[in-house]
Amino acid sequence: MEPKEFSDFAKSMVDYIVEYLENLRERRVLANVQPGYLRPLIPNAAPDDPDSWQDVMADIERVIMPGITHWQSPRFHAYYPMTNSYPSIVADMLSGAIACVGFSWMASPACTELEVVMLDWLGNMIGLPKEFLASSGGKGGAVIQGTASEATLMALQAAKAKKVQEVKEDHPDWTDDMIVTKLVAYTSDQAHSSVERAGLFGGVKMHFIASDAKNSMRGEDLEMAIKNDLEAGLIPFYAVVTLGTTNSCAFDRLDECGPVGNKYHIWIHVDAGYAGCAFICPEYRHFMQGIETADSFNFNPHKWLLVNFDCSTMWLKDPSWLINAFYVNPVYLRHETQGSLPDYRHWQIPLSRRFRALKLWFVLRLYGVKQLQDHIRRYCKFAQEFAEMCRADERFEIVGEVNMALVCFRLKGGNEANEKLLKVINCRGNIHMVAAKIHEIYFLRMAVCSRYTKSEDMIYTWNEVKEVADEMLQK
Amino acid sequence: MEPKEFSDFAKSMVDYIVEYLENLRERRVLANVQPGYLRPLIPNAAPDDPDSWQDVMADIERVIMPGITHWQSPRFHAYYPMTNSYPSIVADMLSGAIACVGFSWMASPACTELEVVMLDWLGNMIGLPKEFLASSGGKGGAVIQGTASEATLMALQAAKAKKVQEVKEDHPDWTDDMIVTKLVAYTSDQAHSSVERAGLFGGVKMHFIASDAKNSMRGEDLEMAIKNDLEAGLIPFYAVVTLGTTNSCAFDRLDECGPVGNKYHIWIHVDAGYAGCAFICPEYRHFMQGIETADSFNFNPHKWLLVNFDCSTMWLKDPSWLINAFYVNPVYLRHETQGSLPDYRHWQIPLSRRFRALKLWFVLRLYGVKQLQDHIRRYCKFAQEFAEMCRADERFEIVGEVNMALVCFRLKGGNEANEKLLKVINCRGNIHMVAAKIHEIYFLRMAVCSRYTKSEDMIYTWNEVKEVADEMLQK
Repeated sequence: MEPKEFSDFAKSMVDYIVEYLENLRERRVLANVQPGYLRPLIPNAAPDDPDSWQDVMADIERVIMPGITHWQSPRFHAYYPMTNSYPSIVADMLSGAIACVGFSWMASPACTELEVVMLDWLGNMIGLPKEFLASSGGKGGAVIQGTASEATLMALQAAKAKKVQEVKEDHPDWTDDMIVTKLVAYTSDQAHSSVERAGLFGGVKMHFIASDAKNSMRGEDLEMAIKNDLEAGLIPFYAVVTLGTTNSCAFDRLDECGPVGNKYHIWIHVDAGYAGCAFICPEYRHFMQGIETADSFNFNPHKWLLVNFDCSTMWLKDPSWLINAFYVNPVYLRHETQGSLPDYRHWQIPLSRRFRALKLWFVLRLYGVKQLQDHIRRYCKFAQEFAEMCRADERFEIVGEVNMALVCFRLKGGNEANEKLLKVINCRGNIHMVAAKIHEIYFLRMAVCSRYTKSEDMIYTWNEVKEVADEMLQK
Repeated sequence: MEPKEFSDFAKSMVDYIVEYLENLRERRVLANVQPGYLRPLIPNAAPDDPDSWQDVMADIERVIMPGITHWQSPRFHAYYPMTNSYPSIVADMLSGAIACVGFSWMASPACTELEVVMLDWLGNMIGLPKEFLASSGGKGGAVIQGTASEATLMALQAAKAKKVQEVKEDHPDWTDDMIVTKLVAYTSDQAHSSVERAGLFGGVKMHFIASDAKNSMRGEDLEMAIKNDLEAGLIPFYAVVTLGTTNSCAFDRLDECGPVGNKYHIWIHVDAGYAGCAFICPEYRHFMQGIETADSFNFNPHKWLLVNFDCSTMWLKDPSWLINAFYVNPVYLRHETQGSLPDYRHWQIPLSRRFRALKLWFVLRLYGVKQLQDHIRRYCKFAQEFAEMCRADERFEIVGEVNMALVCFRLKGGNEANEKLLKVINCRGNIHMVAAKIHEIYFLRMAVCSRYTKSEDMIYTWNEVKEVADEMLQK
């Protein structure tokens, strides 16, 4: 493709993107296709000779859009937000053009260095203690992972390497295999499925601590589990504390669990995937009380801070455990200045990595801290507006507290009615939600997910829920 | 940021990208900065109020470009290519605007379905046996992973799950831990560092098979290692066969190792990261002889097929082992149509995933098969041209065979001279290469990496090498 063609094509795509995003409200939020819809719409083999870009543009509406569930729509309330923004899209264009790979400092110094500085900017914005920041001049440092799943897994592996070494000092005759067999990790029964999966991946036991009435993991419950396991001859080594669970945006008590972890020499990893974004507003930081006891902290700017997926930021007080857990360093990856700045390949599962710090830089500069704070507060206000409407209808109840921009709610009564409610809502496809279940109570989750959301959208969403309920309960 | 501003900003970025890519040859390929160069160039905190996009644009040349090693430059010969292209950049713009997350079919059917069909297109283009393709209607299927590292690791985990289950059928009294302790994986001493790392990650032993004079792993060597391990009471379960090593683009003998793997019920994973791209040309497919014996096959279109990183395509004859290795399925991720098409979250390490199939679709359509074949053949021809010039200079020798678009070469004599040669070349920064070492022989690697490369660039690169050698050998 010649530069002139690219220029026309890309600019046409810019116009399409504006048209798409600014009019998202008009599209049915939930894809309305049957499995297998796409294959008959396109040829069964790649063309021998090039198609025209105009053909490709035309096929977006014909082939792709019918099968899109519109995550950026103000009618989308499923899961948690997966954000995008104009500055972030432009940053990714630049990243795609440079197309460097930042596996070592030398492979593109800007890629590594901008990441180091951006994670200092962001760490300061959420009030992280200095020990986590590269700018402190201590051991602390940070990295952009792809996802919170990877951060949880990498922290687990670091904690495992650390504990194996500690145990071997006391028991030089024990093999690694013997030790790993005894290792046990902890998390709440409310933790994200990726935490359980990290345990399976890491080949270690994981004990799930029953959460309290607020769906929070408490320090004394964690301590009791640790004591039991120690008595049984196991070796506690890692605990994942969740700030803002996926089920209900509940917060584990980091201020209690952190000190317990420290007492028993257990690595404390904080998974604040979604809610961590809100910590740029000081009024939400009470949820991270106890952060000074943590070994690693992770949240996803791609969830709620207008940075496109993937950008999962992870800070560590001592990254050397991460780096050394799987250190391999072949000749073709070595370079002269090795050591003075991070070679990020040692910090992550894959070797290669894109220039993702550009997105952070563009977003932080082109919104600025105040607008980002407004953005967080606006979402939270919308959630409260929805909750108000829900509370005012006596057929419904709010489940737990309304934290951040998530409202958990249900029809009073049994699960079956609520399962039906959700099914009908999603079948209509005007809004999209998913459910969760805690202690056998099934409920719906209304997450505010779009930067296009207005108060009117909350009214629309509530009316949609109400209408379905009206119909259901009439019958 | 308002749509009008985005439109101006994005179109300005389009112009910048054209300017950058079309004039890449003029830039010093290797970044010429000292560690820590970037921090003093920007403020030490995010701004409270937004900067203008014009300021951000201006800072690209001031802050970023001095620290970029230009991977797309025709002067770049390090590692292997990490490709980009105009169609791929535009596809990523669309992906960033839609910003859906394809962890389940329902979360965006198009994201899953286009991936399934594109991997059929691509699988057919490289001549994969039907058993690997979804279109065959059998068990086979494919997925886009982020990197070959992840593909190797996921295949290892699948193989591990499979073998543990098999062993338990024969030994119902053995625990998982007991079995895992006995597991042993195999690869060549020439395999990529990520293979060794996958073994460390998976917590299993890995034995490295000495390669032959052509740096290939041979069937009889693999079989001998397996027999020895069986006699020692170990349980062989997994072998990674490399087609196109990073050191020297050597090819393991899949036609020998594959049948050995089958004979001993070992999962055969084929890592064709770079060279797999060339299999779209029939004349290179002899290297994949024996492919019908493999359980999984992986290569990176982001390396040499003009698809932007990350796009690492992986085919499996029976993906169920991968899917079930770490199957977790919480309520909030379930959906009605589950089961009829892949829920790709089970196929990979992270939960979330971008809409990467768009890049494949745009590239395959806007180049077409013939132009992509030409592209591969052109690179290989350039490598031969360079090798010719190198052979004509009696001070130099080619190391091994010239495979694909990589030339391994060195000054005749000791390693020290060659280490110096590379160091001076990279210090001058007009071209960029890295070295490798096999059996204590250190050599330079000249990989053709840019879609802007012409025959003149090969002459330029050779002259640069020659000039440095002239200077060194005069002294």
